[in-house]
Amino acid sequence: MTASSIKKIQDYLKEHGLDAFLVLTKLNRQYLSGFTGSVGAVLVTKRGGELFVDNRYTIRAKRESNLKVHNSLQLPLRLRGRAPSLRVREGRGELRIGIEDKISLQEFKRLKQDYKGVKWVTTSNVIEDLRAIKSVQEIKFIEKAQSINDRIFAAVRKSVRPGQTEMQISQKMEQAAIKLGADGMAFESIVAFGANAAAPHHLSGKQKIKKNNFLLLDFGVLVNGYHSDFTRTLFIGGPTKRQEKIYKIVLEAQIRGIREIGIEKSAVSVDKAVRKHIERAGFGKYFTHNTGHGVGLEIHELPNFSPKSGDILQNHMIVTIEPGIYIESWGGVRIEDMVLVSGSGPVILSRSPKDLKSMIIK
Amino acid sequence: MTASSIKKIQDYLKEHGLDAFLVLTKLNRQYLSGFTGSVGAVLVTKRGGELFVDNRYTIRAKRESNLKVHNSLQLPLRLRGRAPSLRVREGRGELRIGIEDKISLQEFKRLKQDYKGVKWVTTSNVIEDLRAIKSVQEIKFIEKAQSINDRIFAAVRKSVRPGQTEMQISQKMEQAAIKLGADGMAFESIVAFGANAAAPHHLSGKQKIKKNNFLLLDFGVLVNGYHSDFTRTLFIGGPTKRQEKIYKIVLEAQIRGIREIGIEKSAVSVDKAVRKHIERAGFGKYFTHNTGHGVGLEIHELPNFSPKSGDILQNHMIVTIEPGIYIESWGGVRIEDMVLVSGSGPVILSRSPKDLKSMIIK
Repeated sequence: MTASSIKKIQDYLKEHGLDAFLVLTKLNRQYLSGFTGSVGAVLVTKRGGELFVDNRYTIRAKRESNLKVHNSLQLPLRLRGRAPSLRVREGRGELRIGIEDKISLQEFKRLKQDYKGVKWVTTSNVIEDLRAIKSVQEIKFIEKAQSINDRIFAAVRKSVRPGQTEMQISQKMEQAAIKLGADGMAFESIVAFGANAAAPHHLSGKQKIKKNNFLLLDFGVLVNGYHSDFTRTLFIGGPTKRQEKIYKIVLEAQIRGIREIGIEKSAVSVDKAVRKHIERAGFGKYFTHNTGHGVGLEIHELPNFSPKSGDILQNHMIVTIEPGIYIESWGGVRIEDMVLVSGSGPVILSRSPKDLKSMIIK
Repeated sequence: MTASSIKKIQDYLKEHGLDAFLVLTKLNRQYLSGFTGSVGAVLVTKRGGELFVDNRYTIRAKRESNLKVHNSLQLPLRLRGRAPSLRVREGRGELRIGIEDKISLQEFKRLKQDYKGVKWVTTSNVIEDLRAIKSVQEIKFIEKAQSINDRIFAAVRKSVRPGQTEMQISQKMEQAAIKLGADGMAFESIVAFGANAAAPHHLSGKQKIKKNNFLLLDFGVLVNGYHSDFTRTLFIGGPTKRQEKIYKIVLEAQIRGIREIGIEKSAVSVDKAVRKHIERAGFGKYFTHNTGHGVGLEIHELPNFSPKSGDILQNHMIVTIEPGIYIESWGGVRIEDMVLVSGSGPVILSRSPKDLKSMIIK
């Protein structure tokens, strides 16, 4: 991904009359350079990308990155006459360097203090937009992460029993993830029984699993820095009519959303397909979050499926579709799959069942 | 910690002529409110602290936080006439609200767009300074985290054998951490054999442990959101004279640094005590990082032990002292303990040995 992304940023420099682009945020830096350390900078100029790290990280940076590694955090911006790519253009009087609007006010202040004669140009989502479209290698990592989810879910379905606590299930899932080759969990797993499932982001606790209620599992794993994200809602015992009805509404909404996914489709139209179905069924006010999001080096990245999203789907984006219905002090249902946008239609990355019957644990 | 910290921020408001303080960064928000979710805001006014979260988090926020929880991310800054604490002061014409300089340029831009008539006052480390001084409860969490480190280290000392890989040891340490009651690792564990130990932040890999070289272990665990941080350097087999000499220099430097710790002492004087010893021994240029740092909700927080630090030590700070000597393609030694600053002198939180003899694995 490195080489072609650097090239795209160089195109961006030309289009926007910039001399360089400075990347300070961790994951964008990692995306461009391969370097996983916590401090460093990538500077992209006409010459290419260069990585700047401090002493702690020099050896690791050289091992991880294909970019030229400098053993210094001092950018060569003062040496204008000497660094050919950063010479001030004739008659302009200052360097124009793009920066990410995700850097902090503090970092911005330091840049302004440390480098005189630079015009810093704030940009939004330049690298995040590149990251939204996955390379073949990135797709492989995420597919592997999802296949581990499938195996963890199969194991939980087999072993879950009344009397276990949410926390115990969550810990078992983590141990299974490591055994199956994941590098760790993608986020704090949500294991929510009964009324707890009404909180979309419930923290697994000491609540014991009982009979006749929902058990919502939302989890993912990390593979080479890439995340997966997956939700199923089991029933322990047989569902009531109302539980069954709500499950089927969420499932149908999710299927409709996935069907709407395609190259050049708008994220809004996907969100609408999902939201409309839930609203028509009379549960609109209980679907309290967005329909989905991109997944990659971050668990939430572009595109964003909200009613106000301006994002357009592109080939090789990987997104979640995850509608839910949450009723306070009663419970909740959410169903989530990751989907690859492709020329031959949406590709669901998970192989786990989601039909009602398969969710019932007798 | 919540109540007394809110009070201290209210004092800060008075001192600096502010109407409110807005906290958007995750850990500062968590510190003040107890809320662990990924999106939200704490607004501190003369009335107290209030927590703003969206639908996903309302139930969890109410469970976790003692602050008043609003089910909205919209701050009541437009309703000036109605929110008594946020009424514009007589004759001033605008609200003055403190913000953290750790927020992003993007967040700052949105604040300016969303709330007219507010003068945003950028501040540095207001809450980070409070966080540096630990409450009794926080000290307990960190002590527990360190006691788990001690047990993990004892287990590694017993079980490490030539032929194991760095990664295998790292994974065993993680499994042990969970078994011993940790919530997870504090950071990616560093297990570095031989020449790999020359990279202060080496990533554990497939390198096999052999005889007659260093094995550097740098790791920590999480307990209730609080981190621990701990390093020992073992020898596999008997050390050479040079290995022995370098180990003893690092150990003596570390002991001297710890001895220098006390209430009202400067971080610079601690750094100097450590650095001077290594320099005098002729290895100054191989000690390439800071002497230590505070530990708490973050693995690196205030105070900072660098040659240029302006920090002064206070009662109940918890800090690391971790000198090292790193020689490229040869190897490295680092020794690190967490130390509690107290009226009765420095309290080393780890109980693990660090004398040369105890480090030798035959």
